This record gives sequence, C-alpha cells and structure tokens, in this order.
Amino acid sequence: MPGEFDLIRRFFSHPGAAPGVVVGIGDDAAVLRVPDGCDLVAAVDTIVESRHFPAGSDPRSIGHRALAVNLSDLAAMGAQPAWATLALTLPSADEAWLEGFAAGLAALARRHGVTLVGGDTTRGPLTVSIQIMGFVPRGGALLRSGARAGDLLAVTGTLGDAGAGLALAQAGGDARAATADAAALELLRRFEYPTPRVEMGLAARGIATAAMDLSDGIAGDLVKFAAASGLAAHVDVDRLPLSAALGSRESAALARDRALCAGDDYELMFAVPAARAAALAAAAAALELRLTVIGSFAPGRDVTWSSNGGAFTPAGGGFDHFA
Amino acid sequence: MPGEFDLIRRFFSHPGAAPGVVVGIGDDAAVLRVPDGCDLVAAVDTIVESRHFPAGSDPRSIGHRALAVNLSDLAAMGAQPAWATLALTLPSADEAWLEGFAAGLAALARRHGVTLVGGDTTRGPLTVSIQIMGFVPRGGALLRSGARAGDLLAVTGTLGDAGAGLALAQAGGDARAATADAAALELLRRFEYPTPRVEMGLAARGIATAAMDLSDGIAGDLVKFAAASGLAAHVDVDRLPLSAALGSRESAALARDRALCAGDDYELMFAVPAARAAALAAAAAALELRLTVIGSFAPGRDVTWSSNGGAFTPAGGGFDHFA
Repeated sequence: MPGEFDLIRRFFSHPGAAPGVVVGIGDDAAVLRVPDGCDLVAAVDTIVESRHFPAGSDPRSIGHRALAVNLSDLAAMGAQPAWATLALTLPSADEAWLEGFAAGLAALARRHGVTLVGGDTTRGPLTVSIQIMGFVPRGGALLRSGARAGDLLAVTGTLGDAGAGLALAQAGGDARAATADAAALELLRRFEYPTPRVEMGLAARGIATAAMDLSDGIAGDLVKFAAASGLAAHVDVDRLPLSAALGSRESAALARDRALCAGDDYELMFAVPAARAAALAAAAAALELRLTVIGSFAPGRDVTWSSNGGAFTPAGGGFDHFA
Repeated sequence: MPGEFDLIRRFFSHPGAAPGVVVGIGDDAAVLRVPDGCDLVAAVDTIVESRHFPAGSDPRSIGHRALAVNLSDLAAMGAQPAWATLALTLPSADEAWLEGFAAGLAALARRHGVTLVGGDTTRGPLTVSIQIMGFVPRGGALLRSGARAGDLLAVTGTLGDAGAGLALAQAGGDARAATADAAALELLRRFEYPTPRVEMGLAARGIATAAMDLSDGIAGDLVKFAAASGLAAHVDVDRLPLSAALGSRESAALARDRALCAGDDYELMFAVPAARAAALAAAAAALELRLTVIGSFAPGRDVTWSSNGGAFTPAGGGFDHFA
C-alpha cells in the first residue's frame, strides 16, 4: 500500500509545465500566477459518500463529480478555471479505486484546462473536498446580486434528470441492470457525470446581469438568487425544461417535482435584460446548449410559482445537508 | 438545528471589507485580488478526528489547529497569508461545538489577517479541510529545492513538545488532570495550539535559500527536504532544540525520539548559507524565536545523523497517514 507521500504524486501529478503554475505539487504550497488585469475566483465543495453519492459508486464518477460541482461554481461566476487542490479522505489506499478516481478527475480537468496544484490524503470515511481556482477580468465576475427588476430568468439544459438518476443509482445494481434502457442510462449519466456549464458561464459575461448554479434544486436556489439581488422572482413551472428521458420514465408530476427540488443538476440560471435575451440565447445555441426562459424578476421579496395560470407551491425547499 | 445555508454565514462571516476581497462568502465563489507584482500561494491540509486529534478534543483547539497547519505551509513558502476556504464535515450542527470551533479559527485568522472567503458544510464524520491562500513577491517564494551544498540547516523553536502533548491528550481526562503541572500544560498547549511561524517565514525571504515546515517529524521531513534540493544532509541530533518542559517530563532518549519522529511541531527548517546565518539568527531574535543550527547540506543523496560523534539511526521515519 503506497504511503500518503506517494499517493498525490503517483496518481495526480501532471507532467510538464502548466499555464500559470510556477510551483505545482511537491512543495509546502503551490505558487501560481494570476494573469495581469484579472481577479482570482475561488470556491470549495465537498462530496461525502452516502450523502452526496451512494456507497460503492464507480470511483471514476466520484472523481468526475467532485471536480464538476466545483467547476459549476466557477461557471456561475463567468470564470475561467485554472487550478485545483484536492483534500481526499479515504478508508484505504486501494489502488484500483484510486486509479478510477484519478482518471475521472483528470479527464474532466483536461477538458477545462485545470491543473491539480496541491493535495492532501488522509485516512477516514470517504470524503472528497476540492478547491477550485480560476480568474475573471477585473470587475467582470457574474454575481448573484446583479439581477435587476424586469430581467428575465433563464436556465440552461434540462432539470430533474440527475434527481431521477440518483434514484436509479440508489436502487442498486440489480434494479439498475433491470432498468437499463437508454433513457435510464441517460438519467444515470446525468447524475454520475454532470456537465459543468463552464463555456456558457464565460459566454454570458457582459450579457447576463447575474448568475447562479443549480445544485440543490431551483425551488430553494432561486430563493437565494432573488434574495441576493433584493428582488422578487416568478416562475412559470410549466416552462421548466424537462428532458425526453425524464418524461419517458416518470409521471409529469414527479418529473416536475424532480426539476424543482431534487438538485444535482449543475445547470446555470441567469438574469438577463429582455433586450439581451436573444444574445444569451445565441450564445447558448453556439454551444449547442438548451436555454429556456422560465420567469422573471420584479421589485419585491417573494419567489412565486404558477402553473396553468394558477398559483403553485413546490413540494420541497431544496436540498439542505443539515435539514 | 440551523441549515447548511446558515452555518457558514452565522459562524464564519466577517463584517465589513477585508483586504483584497472583492466578493466574500455568499456567492457561488469568492472574487479576490492578488496584489500587483505578486504570485498567489495556495495549500490545503485536512485534519480528521481520531487521526490528527483525539475524539472529544476542545472544538476551539480543532479550529485553531485546522488553520495553523495551513498557515505553517504558507510560512514555509515565505508567503503572506490572506484568505482561506473551509470545508467542514461534522456529525451534527451542534451550536456550542460550532461556536468554539469558529472562535478558535477566528482568533488565529485575525492574528494573521486571514479572511474566510468561502465554505462548505456537510454532514459526516468530523473532518476539517482548509485551503489557505496568500502571496509572495513574484519569484520570492522560499522553496524546498533551493538549498545549496554547504548551507547550514537551522530549525525554529523546540521539537518534540507537540508529540509529548498528544500523548498526554490521548491519556484522557483523568490522566490529564492528574498530570496537570505547568510543564504538562505547556506540552498540551503545544499540541492543541501550535504557533505557525508566519512572521519568521516572511523574515527569512532573501536570507534562507530553502525552507520546509516540520509536520511529520524531522526524521522523515528532512529526507524530503534534502531530496527536493538534490543534496545530502547531516544532523547532529545532540543539537536538536528541546524545551525545558519536555526535558522535565521525559527521559533524554524519549525526548529525542519525540523531536525526531513524533511530528505536529509546525516549526520551520531552513537552509541558509553560512555567511547569512547570523542574519537569519537576528531575524529570529527580533521575533523572540529560538533558532538552532543542527546540521548542514552537502553534495550527495543521503540524510545521516550523529550523536556523541558516532553514527545514529532515528527510530522512526516520520508520521505517514497511510503507513
């Protein structure tokens, strides 16, 4: 079994020079160069076994998700990802597990030009904490607080798929095999390998007035988004974008509940002035990404929902790890 | 019990503006401004209950230690600390525990001008992961790899105290009370509230050629330090700085073993040219910090130890969380 001192180097060191990395893994700390005229953007997110993913999940998916949820935070800021550090707590230094985990993490890191610049491995219950760092031109970050009354509310992709995928993953191996039609596999993939909308976040800079990623379900996340901007928001839940895969496997009511409350979607929501909505849609189209206007912001404080022209109350308030 | 969304804000938000913090806690990510002409320095370290500290430890000490071990990494780079993110996994949102933890963390953060800019709380076995960020003038970082043949090896403070303190802490409450003389309390304090040598790291820039912090015991850490510089090193173990508290409670042989192998000291070791050793000593003296030359670097690859003029072999190879 390799020692702690070897693990990070063996599984996570990158050969050769990486942009902005003066000193990478191997010293007491990394030395990094933020481009001139840019601000640093930093976030941290942790995923814990049996809490954020089922015990026994494919380690490749765990590595992917741990980085994806962090990249999603940078995407919501309109930031260009650059570097990450990894704090990995695991019960034992299982080589096959580590190889899968590192492969999942590395594949997504490469796709977005992210270099792992530091890490720490400790023994304990499986917990993966990644801090992601990136940059934006000074003053260019997309904040939650920038929405203005009258802005439209738009979301990327489709909602609720990951929640349905998690339910399938939790059903266990046999149930999973039994339900392995194309739609089920697509929903599972949406949970296990979420796609952070990094390019869309970058494209939205200068078009959207505010952004936030959807990690806990829009029913809860939108309350925070609107509060950060000091506004009310309204959503027509009949406009929530649902995938064909979700629609083929679940009732309309359950699909809608998943879209509102299940979380794990890692899509982005934007506030955008009506006059710039077409520009945002064009940016999404250029990325072959669905973008759907589902509501709007207004003066006030409440988030309200409607369906078929009547008031609607979401079943849940979003995922809260301590609720 | 407060929700996850409240915990970070309630216990860790700072009022008012902090240097370089454009956007702090509360958005998808923090936006930070590295001073012009400086490089970013980033490190991550995790502490796990029952692995790095005894179960039931004072939460104030846990908060202090989680930040201290990270500050020690920045100190070893000669970096000015600035910002931190916190990934906190805890079994339940116990208010009294959180208040103590936050107080311990905040007191040390204030002392070093560190602002908490992001965080994530999840439920699970107690695990604290902090990523620290700071900066150095471009090209000014103290690396492990800078030592040159002929450089002296110097260490700050005294070694082995924290190891003895941990043994006392592990002995449990009754044994602890029974041994609560001044020396025992001092050793406990050295384990529970290590002092990161941040000011000394800053003062050593331009004087020392290389630096590394002592977290796992010099017997193992020096092997890594010498290897990073591509050199051999020799230590006269009779010169290892031992405290009066340690000497009053343990045999000379055990005290020496603790100094070599016990870890948790969070002192710094420096490589320094003989011609600049007086300057480094003066810098330490100005900080009322002990600095002791214990050996030197030479061409070659091995780390050797001597005592009373004869060869010496340390009992252990340093603390390895996966050994």
